Amino acid sequence: MDEIKLAALNKNLDRTIIKIGNVSVGEEFFVIAGPCSVESEKQTVETAIAVKKSGAKMLRGGAFKPRTSPYAFQGLGLKGLKILEKAKKETGLPIVTEVIDSRDVTWICEYADVLQIGARNMQNFSLLKEVGKSKKPVLLKRGMHSTLSEWLNCAEYILSEGNPNVILCERGIRTFETYTRNTLDISMVPAVKELTHLPIIVDPSHGTGRLSLIKPMSFAAIAAGVDGLIVEAHIDPRNAKSDKDQQMTPEIFADYMKDINGLYDAVQKIINKPKN
Amino acid sequence: MDEIKLAALNKNLDRTIIKIGNVSVGEEFFVIAGPCSVESEKQTVETAIAVKKSGAKMLRGGAFKPRTSPYAFQGLGLKGLKILEKAKKETGLPIVTEVIDSRDVTWICEYADVLQIGARNMQNFSLLKEVGKSKKPVLLKRGMHSTLSEWLNCAEYILSEGNPNVILCERGIRTFETYTRNTLDISMVPAVKELTHLPIIVDPSHGTGRLSLIKPMSFAAIAAGVDGLIVEAHIDPRNAKSDKDQQMTPEIFADYMKDINGLYDAVQKIINKPKN
Amino acid sequence: MDEIKLAALNKNLDRTIIKIGNVSVGEEFFVIAGPCSVESEKQTVETAIAVKKSGAKMLRGGAFKPRTSPYAFQGLGLKGLKILEKAKKETGLPIVTEVIDSRDVTWICEYADVLQIGARNMQNFSLLKEVGKSKKPVLLKRGMHSTLSEWLNCAEYILSEGNPNVILCERGIRTFETYTRNTLDISMVPAVKELTHLPIIVDPSHGTGRLSLIKPMSFAAIAAGVDGLIVEAHIDPRNAKSDKDQQMTPEIFADYMKDINGLYDAVQKIINKPKN
Amino acid sequence: MDEIKLAALNKNLDRTIIKIGNVSVGEEFFVIAGPCSVESEKQTVETAIAVKKSGAKMLRGGAFKPRTSPYAFQGLGLKGLKILEKAKKETGLPIVTEVIDSRDVTWICEYADVLQIGARNMQNFSLLKEVGKSKKPVLLKRGMHSTLSEWLNCAEYILSEGNPNVILCERGIRTFETYTRNTLDISMVPAVKELTHLPIIVDPSHGTGRLSLIKPMSFAAIAAGVDGLIVEAHIDPRNAKSDKDQQMTPEIFADYMKDINGLYDAVQKIINKPKN
Repeated sequence: MDEIKLAALNKNLDRTIIKIGNVSVGEEFFVIAGPCSVESEKQTVETAIAVKKSGAKMLRGGAFKPRTSPYAFQGLGLKGLKILEKAKKETGLPIVTEVIDSRDVTWICEYADVLQIGARNMQNFSLLKEVGKSKKPVLLKRGMHSTLSEWLNCAEYILSEGNPNVILCERGIRTFETYTRNTLDISMVPAVKELTHLPIIVDPSHGTGRLSLIKPMSFAAIAAGVDGLIVEAHIDPRNAKSDKDQQMTPEIFADYMKDINGLYDAVQKIINKPKN
Repeated sequence: MDEIKLAALNKNLDRTIIKIGNVSVGEEFFVIAGPCSVESEKQTVETAIAVKKSGAKMLRGGAFKPRTSPYAFQGLGLKGLKILEKAKKETGLPIVTEVIDSRDVTWICEYADVLQIGARNMQNFSLLKEVGKSKKPVLLKRGMHSTLSEWLNCAEYILSEGNPNVILCERGIRTFETYTRNTLDISMVPAVKELTHLPIIVDPSHGTGRLSLIKPMSFAAIAAGVDGLIVEAHIDPRNAKSDKDQQMTPEIFADYMKDINGLYDAVQKIINKPKN
Repeated sequence: MDEIKLAALNKNLDRTIIKIGNVSVGEEFFVIAGPCSVESEKQTVETAIAVKKSGAKMLRGGAFKPRTSPYAFQGLGLKGLKILEKAKKETGLPIVTEVIDSRDVTWICEYADVLQIGARNMQNFSLLKEVGKSKKPVLLKRGMHSTLSEWLNCAEYILSEGNPNVILCERGIRTFETYTRNTLDISMVPAVKELTHLPIIVDPSHGTGRLSLIKPMSFAAIAAGVDGLIVEAHIDPRNAKSDKDQQMTPEIFADYMKDINGLYDAVQKIINKPKN
Repeated sequence: MDEIKLAALNKNLDRTIIKIGNVSVGEEFFVIAGPCSVESEKQTVETAIAVKKSGAKMLRGGAFKPRTSPYAFQGLGLKGLKILEKAKKETGLPIVTEVIDSRDVTWICEYADVLQIGARNMQNFSLLKEVGKSKKPVLLKRGMHSTLSEWLNCAEYILSEGNPNVILCERGIRTFETYTRNTLDISMVPAVKELTHLPIIVDPSHGTGRLSLIKPMSFAAIAAGVDGLIVEAHIDPRNAKSDKDQQMTPEIFADYMKDINGLYDAVQKIINKPKN
């Protein structure tokens, strides 16, 4: 493993805690929810209200979408960010949104509370350095073919520019298996915890690509010790412009939140139980 | 996906329940534990007594070991099976042991309560047909490069020979990641449950290859809905002839069992809670 | 890499040369051709006559077929071997056929000139030991998930039982790429040559799964230094019971043979040219 | 496969030919050579003179290096580009150099004749759009985890911005195999040729990571129909700041060039031979 320095677990350092909105990431369990893409004000604001009601602590939504084909919907750009701003005004939820170009970091910081680096840009080192200079919290997704060592070194790129606020996000790796869209590597949760002081969350929506697997894999992540989850929810998934098959309706999301909060509490009791 | 027939989930069929010793596999949660290899009577019997005391319901132990190199320890063979027989006499634990040759199936059935098909033999179709004729419960490990579809078709080979007693076992797939020995694919637990009526267990020892990851990944599997677990335990792991780094001592195993049983109960309460 | 001993390149040992029919494998370039499965006497004998006419040196044909589904055509078994025997009588071509069960090795040796171990059985160590005892030439295919080190260790299993007549066969590994059926790893040709004294051939039919790629990938293998090729040819591919899309007609095969023999000669001239 | 439009092979379109220096890429075979990183004027200019003497048609050299660790040598930046400019002045060789940041495209165009997009940035869509606007020839490396379909869609990003000058470059994909640094997927050469009108080259240096495999894999690529090769050469590989183990000395490169040119001519004769 290439040496990591600033990210490495160290008995002289506390675990990283990042205050975002009213959540202390790394200390309290939290869920980020929202649509894959920002498509309209109505869709985004209504989704934000719904996920907040069920307990989501941050709103996710893509304004700049990295798409395989140049002919696919590329996101609303600035217009999308302004919609996210309205959703934040309505709900108070901090905004998590992806940045895909090093030129955009400065001005997107005016709209975003957390800058997301997507899987395809994990080793876009120019972008990493730029978000490293920004001091905004960064959600760093694991590349779909990236080793743990490469991933932690990308965190190191951000930390070494002076930004300590890095949240790692496991979102599935590419394997030969085709039933799931990706293979969600839950073992990265305890692995990251034993190597670094950084918080880690899991994305079961992209990690599985199947609505039916989101709850069981969220359960798995929580039981393995994850700090939070990021999931896709949409007021009307059937008419979504991307990722139709993996976005939860508000009703499904409400039920989901009850169960995962219940599980989180149960796991804490077991872990913190005095041994005798 | 190649069509599966007998293994397919079907509203006219109950989920498969297999009575082994005093466990109803598919109905009650259970743990199989024991050494990677049967090395001596003392090692095996003492390990069996220890794991039984902590709540294991079956004893695992290899008498025939499929090893990468012909010069590595190949197992004790018949002598190993006789040692397992003694361990069963001492503890009452049913025996799970691997069969690697179609010629051995008949006589190994006199010693084994469950025939294990290892990952390397998942598509050894002659062996699958032979264990299919035997009617003994079969533990069918997923090949390290096998799709879900291929795996279920291998179960179909056994079922179509007249043996309905198949337990699937996810044990990690081979990917580019090197921190873990394999990538344990927890998403197979809910995926198998939505496609088949067969029980599924998980092997976090081979799935991670790291002692420190066995408990968190067992937690993950339980939370995802697994029917049971198979883990490696050894009275003296440092002197084991194989898999030194991933076998639990009796003390670690005792602590492990308390926690996983606690988690299993907590998960059941959440899943079975009336919704309102 | 796990240590290889008997297979290792060694300045005190010559490269392995295996006399099969009138070919010295390891010394002269050769092509093995024939249908995926033996389906009927007419299909097999006519294909054998056609491939011999174009210069094939051995006949391949499966009598025992390892198939993903138990409901797919499993091969004609003994009847298939008797058909291969007739094809040999007609053409003089030595027979290469797969063995999938350790119990069958002895009697299949009466029909086969070369025992093929398929990719799914590469680590079927019981079978490897059995063909190791037989002394027949063995064609050992690389497992679709197997490292070079694991593959060479499987050759070592055969050699260490006293059978020095092992031919390695690269047939493609499983990756995320879907355009090709497998990813044919041509780099194994020079890699095997620098590590061992064993001959290596390549299977571009299974390695690509596309008729259009067979010739360019055969060219690539020859240029990389391969000792021979094994390809699928069929008198009537459209009506084949398996691998319809990758079997050459006799006409395509005739054209193919002219070009690959031309390339082989050209490559030899370049390699053997005196440097100045 | 996601639909490709502008890159697709089309009987109404000729194959793309790109004039760079005195080479017609897509029409004449050519080799790009040079050091992994530009380290000093002496190293770069001397290497350029040496590779030109042996017949290289373009000079490669990295001024901006995407490195796994932030603490590894990151390249000389502008200083490196100025060194490349001197090497071009000395030798006349066009310059191929990597661009890793969308902000740099415009000014790097003043130094580069070909803009290289590295494997880690293959899906950096902002960067693709920017090089698409520039009209400079672009060398688009395949991502180490990218399917053929994704790769061609990335070419489509560049083409759809109005830049038709795209050269594809296969440089190996990431698999479980560890003997080679990557698995060089030669089958992409004929696959690209049957799907698109774009030229394709191969990088055997990164594709294998082993000096001993560069020549056989270059042979393989040529025999499979490649349009050109890009290789690493260095005046003093033992003291290189990156990729020590895979850079050719001038002597090795001279010998290499003789053999690959010989092979290219031989392959052309076979392919263009009248059939009868």
